[in-house]
Parts: sequence; structure tokens; C-alpha cells
Amino acid sequence: MPQNNRIVLASRPQGDVKPENFRRDSVASAAPGDGQVLVRVIYLSLDPYMRPRMTEMNSYTPPFELNQPLTGGAVAEVIESKSDRFRAGDIVMGMFGWEQYSIADARLLRKIDAKAAPLIANLGVLGMPGYTAYHGMLRIGQPKPGETVFVSAATGAVGAVAGQLAKIKGARVVGCAGSDAKCEFAVKELGYDACFNHTKERDYDAVLKKLCPKGIDVNFENVGGPIFHAVFKAMNNFGRMAMCGAISEYQDTTPRPGPDKMFTIIQRRLEIKGFIVSDHMQSMGEFVRDVGGWIKEGKIRYRETVVEGLDNAPKAFMGLLKGENFGKLVVKIGDEPKL
Amino acid sequence: MPQNNRIVLASRPQGDVKPENFRRDSVASAAPGDGQVLVRVIYLSLDPYMRPRMTEMNSYTPPFELNQPLTGGAVAEVIESKSDRFRAGDIVMGMFGWEQYSIADARLLRKIDAKAAPLIANLGVLGMPGYTAYHGMLRIGQPKPGETVFVSAATGAVGAVAGQLAKIKGARVVGCAGSDAKCEFAVKELGYDACFNHTKERDYDAVLKKLCPKGIDVNFENVGGPIFHAVFKAMNNFGRMAMCGAISEYQDTTPRPGPDKMFTIIQRRLEIKGFIVSDHMQSMGEFVRDVGGWIKEGKIRYRETVVEGLDNAPKAFMGLLKGENFGKLVVKIGDEPKL
Repeated sequence: MPQNNRIVLASRPQGDVKPENFRRDSVASAAPGDGQVLVRVIYLSLDPYMRPRMTEMNSYTPPFELNQPLTGGAVAEVIESKSDRFRAGDIVMGMFGWEQYSIADARLLRKIDAKAAPLIANLGVLGMPGYTAYHGMLRIGQPKPGETVFVSAATGAVGAVAGQLAKIKGARVVGCAGSDAKCEFAVKELGYDACFNHTKERDYDAVLKKLCPKGIDVNFENVGGPIFHAVFKAMNNFGRMAMCGAISEYQDTTPRPGPDKMFTIIQRRLEIKGFIVSDHMQSMGEFVRDVGGWIKEGKIRYRETVVEGLDNAPKAFMGLLKGENFGKLVVKIGDEPKL
Repeated sequence: MPQNNRIVLASRPQGDVKPENFRRDSVASAAPGDGQVLVRVIYLSLDPYMRPRMTEMNSYTPPFELNQPLTGGAVAEVIESKSDRFRAGDIVMGMFGWEQYSIADARLLRKIDAKAAPLIANLGVLGMPGYTAYHGMLRIGQPKPGETVFVSAATGAVGAVAGQLAKIKGARVVGCAGSDAKCEFAVKELGYDACFNHTKERDYDAVLKKLCPKGIDVNFENVGGPIFHAVFKAMNNFGRMAMCGAISEYQDTTPRPGPDKMFTIIQRRLEIKGFIVSDHMQSMGEFVRDVGGWIKEGKIRYRETVVEGLDNAPKAFMGLLKGENFGKLVVKIGDEPKL
């Protein structure tokens, strides 16, 4: 069995994630049991939802275990199979450890066609982040032509797709992002009508009034906190909020209060709906067909940041929580197979 | 024309409503114009939503005008008609002033059958409050057998119907109310499984844990504030919140923050939906048929508080905002007609 480098959870973070919360180790990789496969991990997805899993809070996914590799969505190559579903050389998607070699139950994996799209796309625009945007924007937000849509984290793996879907549906789309370069990308590449830099703007109420003069009909929420509170105040009657993430809250040591005056929800007949894409896997095929088509037509564009090497995963993840990545963040752990 | 005693809005309240915010006057009643009717008001409904209308805030109904009678749902008898829709002697429902004689556009009135149900029921269990409960509980809350439902203001005009509808649907129903007598009424008469006195309990988290050991699946929100925050924390995955009212916020001079940690909405896939019953009038007939039937079968019970005389309306309204009424609060302004 090959030697397996891993990143394990050394301790649970209090506040900001720190390097000492991770530990790199190396063990002999185990052999797959009946119904399992041994894979070589190629690309590992890093996503904000992993932060709540580092704590013991009752998140929607169980906490990561101490002294075990963190896990995440990944693309991998099957090395050895004890299942008739897969054979060596197959490229698969699944949840794997932050490690070079991983063992998984074959029933939880999905074979992917390595020729149909770049491997990384399966972790981004055509994977969970893209499908999250698709479900939240089209099923919950349901933007109509001429409506105003707001997307926080406008250029993130999810937000970038959410904003472009709203444009496809004919809405005016406004976003915010954490740098001028991201805002420029949002407007020039992704087609947002406007985007503000939330690290520079002091008065979110004022900037929303300026950029969304007709108020906001659909909010796709990725961030939470003060931006969410300002958006809440700017919502129009019968507005919809697709609650996807709250990255600004994930490193809080004491919980922060919600928006002032919840009566607003009643006054304006708001619909606020939290969702987790894994509850809706039955429509994944529809998503791949629609978004795959829009990518081919040039209506959906995307950007990825690829970090080289497992050892850089902790630093990349800490940066993700501070918004340092640009577009979908992926760690390259092993080489792509030659096709 | 008869002399018309009226209660007008003398000033807008800051914080608690006070007697000086009202003024009684007496004017000659006007004559109806074309398409209008002059009515004699019999029963006037007092409802919490009137409090936001006393201010200039952007509520879902326009603010009351200064120096004009406040308005509300009422049952009245047509005295003089300049419309072929109604004739003198007809009993009608509509929005009328807090006054003895009122003039209204005939197109906005609905004739009621005075023999079908007690006149007051048209303002309560078979009127707006009942329909509000019906829409919020059955269309938004959608309780299923065995689920736990929570109703704040459990014995109020809306809450009492909401709780009983949830029982009819087979749920376990828990509420809170502002006195031991109301809690006893909720359990013994309305069929709640449990009800706590929110003026006595100090630790809402603890009492909810005790009374709702399986968590809360549906919250019918009438109150807002600390009780809402505790309910929010106790919500189960895929829980629904029908946001009907926030009486605890109506007299705030500074807005209060929402619940801590909005990420809960995502984690638990909550659906939080504000609604106003007047947006849904197209299903009123279905409501009258269903709830009318359940009243006849003894499955829905109700209680009313009738205050005698227009001059007592301000005091009764101030009491309503402090929870001093028991069940639906109505002011009797004129005698019922002899049938």
C-alpha cells in the first residue's frame, strides 16, 4: 500500500481558524474492504460550509472528527476496486479525506466522464456550488424580468453562478464582493449591473439605495451580518430570500443578533428560506443539462483558483474564510490522468 | 342628518399608546354621495395591527390620518343608500370609522346574513382573524400528524383558531399566553396540549424544552421578541414559521434585534413567511365553509370580549396591546337590529 499524506483536524478552532488547528501526518494507506474502492485524490474542493464542521455545533453536516482527515468533495481516480461498480482507472466524484489516498463506499461515488468537461468543473460550476446557485436562485428566488436581485459574495463559486442565472432570467442584478478587482470581474465578465466593494463602503444602506433604486425583490444570501441586515431593510413587498450561507458568522465566538424589527417580514410578506443542496439531489440532472447548455452558449462564465499541493490546503482554506480566493477554490493533490 | 360621535387620532404615539392620542368629537354626519352608503355602526373590531397604523411607519396598511376617525373592520346597518347594491336595513361588513355613523363606498362592502351566525362572529372566528389563522396555519404552517406546533398569543382572536386548526390536523399544540386563566382556557377549552404563562416564566428556552421535547415543527408567530427568539432556537429541521404578527414590537421606540445567529435558518432549512390575509381573499369562501363546519361540529370554540360604547374604544385598545382582553375584542357601538 502507498504511503498516504493527510491533513487531520488537530483541534477545534475558537474564532478564526489557525494553522495549529491542522496537523499533517503520513500513514500507510489502508486496503479497501468489500464494496469499497481505494482512490488517488486529484482535486479537492474547499468550501465555506467546512468551517462549521470544524466545531461541535449542530450544523447540517456532522462535525469533523478530531485526529481524522477533514473531508470534502473531490475528484479522484480509482486505484483498486472491491466493488463491481468501478474499476481501476475510473474517474469518480465523492466525499474524500484531505489526503492523497482515500477509501470510500462505492455506493456513494459517481463516475464522471473526464472528456465531457474539465475535471475541476465537477467541483464548481457543474458541481455542488453550481447546483446550490441553481436551486437557490431558480427554485426559491424565482427572479422575474425587471426585478432586482442582490447576491452577496457575488464572484464566489456559488454567487457567480447565482448572479448569472438571475441575468439569464432578465433581472437587474447587483452584488457585493471583497475587492475592486472582484467587483470589476462581476460587472465586466459575469454581467452584473453593479457591484460594490463591501470592504470599502461604510454605509450599506446608502449604497443599496443608490444601486437598487427600486428596492430588492430577491436576495441570494451567502454572507450574513451587517450586509444582510441592510439588504433586509431594502427588500420589497413579496420579496424572496434564498438563504444559502452566512460566512460572516462562521468564525464568531459569540452569536450576533439578526436584523432589527422582524415585523418587516410580515409588513412586506417576505419569504425567507434556508436550503441545503444535498436535500435536492433528485434534480441534479436537470441542472447539469441547463447550466451545461448555458456554459456552451457563453451565458455562464466562471473562474477558478487552483492551489498546488495538499500541504497548502490549510492556508488556502483560511484564506477562503477571509475572501482571499477568486472564484471556485480547489486544491490540486495529484496529477490528472492522461486520457 | 344625525349627530355623529367619533374618536379621532389626536396625535401619533411615541411608545405606549396614551389616552391623549385620541380625541372624542361630535359632528353632523355627512350625506352619502353617488355609489356610497351611510351606515350605523353596530360592532367595531379592535385588532393589534391598528397600532402600527397610528404611526407614520411604512406598514402594510397606510397610516391613520391625524384628526380623522381611526378605522377598522366593523358590522353596520345601512341607513341610507345611494347605490343599487344595498338598501336601508341591510347588514354589511366593511372598514368603517371609529364613529357612530360612517360613509363608505358600496363596492368595498359585503352584505352579511344576520341569521347565519351571530353578528360578532363576522369580526372574529368567521372573519379576518379566523381567516388569518386559517391561511397561516394551513397554507404556510401545514402541520402534519404528530408534529409539534407552537402558537404565541394562544388564546387571542387569531391564535385560538390557529391552535385548534393544528389540533384538527393531528399535531401536538403548545402555546403561551399572558395569564394563568388564559392558559387554563387554552388547555381545557381549546384543546392545547400545553400552554405556559409568559409573564411568569423567566427562561423561555427551558420551558420550550420541557413542553416541546421533540422540538417545534411549525411556529405561528403573533408576538415577536424574546419568545420568538426562543422558539427560533427550538425549531426542527424543515420547520415552517407563519409570521402573522409581532405585537411585542409595536410599541418599541427603538427597533430591537432579531434572533441570534441567522445561520440557523440555513442549518435547519427553515421557511419563514410573512403574510397578510387581505392578499388572499380569493379563498375566503373555502375558509367560511371549513371553519363554519368545524364550529358546528364543536371542533372550534371561541371567546369574545365585548366592550360597551364607542367612548370606551381607546381604553379597550390600549388594554389589547397589553393583552388585557380575553379572545376576540369587539366594541359595541349600536344595538343589533331586531330580526
